[in-house]
Amino acid sequence: MPHFADRLAALVEERRSRLVLGLDPDPAALWPVAIGRGAADGATAARAARAVERHCLAAIEAAAPSCVAAKLQFACFERLGAQGWLALEVVRDAARGSGLLVIADAKRGDVPVTSKAYAQALVGSTPTPFGVVEGFEADAFTASPLLGLDSLEPLIEGAARAGAGCFLLVSTSNPGAPDLQDLEAGGAPLHERIAQLVHEAGGEHVGECGLSLVGAVVGATRPERLARLRSLMPQAIFLLPGVGAQGGGTGALGPAFEPHPAAGLVAASRSIVDAYRERGGDPATAAAAVAQELRSATWNQ
Amino acid sequence: MPHFADRLAALVEERRSRLVLGLDPDPAALWPVAIGRGAADGATAARAARAVERHCLAAIEAAAPSCVAAKLQFACFERLGAQGWLALEVVRDAARGSGLLVIADAKRGDVPVTSKAYAQALVGSTPTPFGVVEGFEADAFTASPLLGLDSLEPLIEGAARAGAGCFLLVSTSNPGAPDLQDLEAGGAPLHERIAQLVHEAGGEHVGECGLSLVGAVVGATRPERLARLRSLMPQAIFLLPGVGAQGGGTGALGPAFEPHPAAGLVAASRSIVDAYRERGGDPATAAAAVAQELRSATWNQ
Repeated sequence: MPHFADRLAALVEERRSRLVLGLDPDPAALWPVAIGRGAADGATAARAARAVERHCLAAIEAAAPSCVAAKLQFACFERLGAQGWLALEVVRDAARGSGLLVIADAKRGDVPVTSKAYAQALVGSTPTPFGVVEGFEADAFTASPLLGLDSLEPLIEGAARAGAGCFLLVSTSNPGAPDLQDLEAGGAPLHERIAQLVHEAGGEHVGECGLSLVGAVVGATRPERLARLRSLMPQAIFLLPGVGAQGGGTGALGPAFEPHPAAGLVAASRSIVDAYRERGGDPATAAAAVAQELRSATWNQ
Repeated sequence: MPHFADRLAALVEERRSRLVLGLDPDPAALWPVAIGRGAADGATAARAARAVERHCLAAIEAAAPSCVAAKLQFACFERLGAQGWLALEVVRDAARGSGLLVIADAKRGDVPVTSKAYAQALVGSTPTPFGVVEGFEADAFTASPLLGLDSLEPLIEGAARAGAGCFLLVSTSNPGAPDLQDLEAGGAPLHERIAQLVHEAGGEHVGECGLSLVGAVVGATRPERLARLRSLMPQAIFLLPGVGAQGGGTGALGPAFEPHPAAGLVAASRSIVDAYRERGGDPATAAAAVAQELRSATWNQ
């Protein structure tokens, strides 16, 4: 499998898009088309999971032409248990079938021996006495750096082996992010220290396009820090969530895209999938329209 | 459901134990009894998951009498996909059937809307058009504080509603933990700032026993910092991993237990489950013996 950054770069150039469709399905707020076709029998979790699948597949069908990747929010599936995990796989396959890369937004992080298990789960495989069990086969995943470099190495090595990417949390999009991430830590805010760690960890893993497989989650809600973070992480792909529902705009993201057209990915979830609630009309039509608008707004910078 | 800390305190007093059985099954290193009885047919993942279940159930049967809780390492199950999730539920039920509390060691953490979904997945339930889907129903879970207080509130509130506990990562057991956790952050090491956050977040959630449902993960590998962390978190239950395989001893954990017999839980995984590899003989006999030794060593302090 070629290097993640090179696969992404080719797709970005081909589709002239850096938009990521975020899928964080709420079973209580699915598109009507997903509910109406529910089978009348089956356990509740299975019926809900099938509806979540239909919802996500419809959203992918509508928005995929404007996107380069789908970001699957694992929490939203895990709340349906094993049935939710099956839905993750169905949605993954549909996204891939629409030409999208699949980002597992799971924000995992643990001590090294456990990180190795997460790497097996997300991008690797697991030897068992009965044969090898393939993992989720994501193209990329998100991870937390709080446990330090040794906890990240198995994730990064696992990603490298799979031609996958690993996005580390640097500066998140939520209002409470500064509580820890902006503390002054050894002469710089903690998120800048994490940025240094991202740059160092990614240095060995740079593709032909000049970008590393070790990327950074940087909330689009604080665009004023993008230039500084870009200077600290010149080879990192920025995954930029928070556009739309969380209040982030698309107008000031330029520094994220400076090194390369694929150096910044803009993730939008509810602003695409729930667009029909504001715009009215058919959910798919509204999602397709907003995705196209976001594609243009984030490409022409 | 009564308060988590009160449930735990009653169990600790009853069993005169503060030992937690860590279950992080590696499908490539299961107890022989778990493999031999595998059905000859079925998909690889399903066969591996059933073997993981048998392994964990045998370990629970052997060690449970010396323990108060089982800590299920989610990563180790997730690498088997949906089948692994089904195994998690079987192991959870077996642990509960042996009188143990169930700790979901998942180290989740995300922006508030997503944290709410994780709370539904771990200790809550999810409304769907087809009825309510129950989550994992853990008695407690681990979580990462890196995203700040607003990201933790849905987890803590979800735990409070369920009579569950929430252990936040403060100072982890791995060698690389100091990379970020020991950075000087605003006049104190970052892990002490996190400890303050644990104390503040837990203040509203104290049970009759005087302990809070908001606890702290504090690696047993750095016992020299326990007294300081205890002074910063006088009401927090410490979950102390790292004994045994990771190099932590049981002799210097006293400050963790000072406020209350249930104020410190010692988690041991491979040192119990893999004891037979060093001691020889039957895995269950070795596990039972080591668990009893660890129970005594950590109780008499």
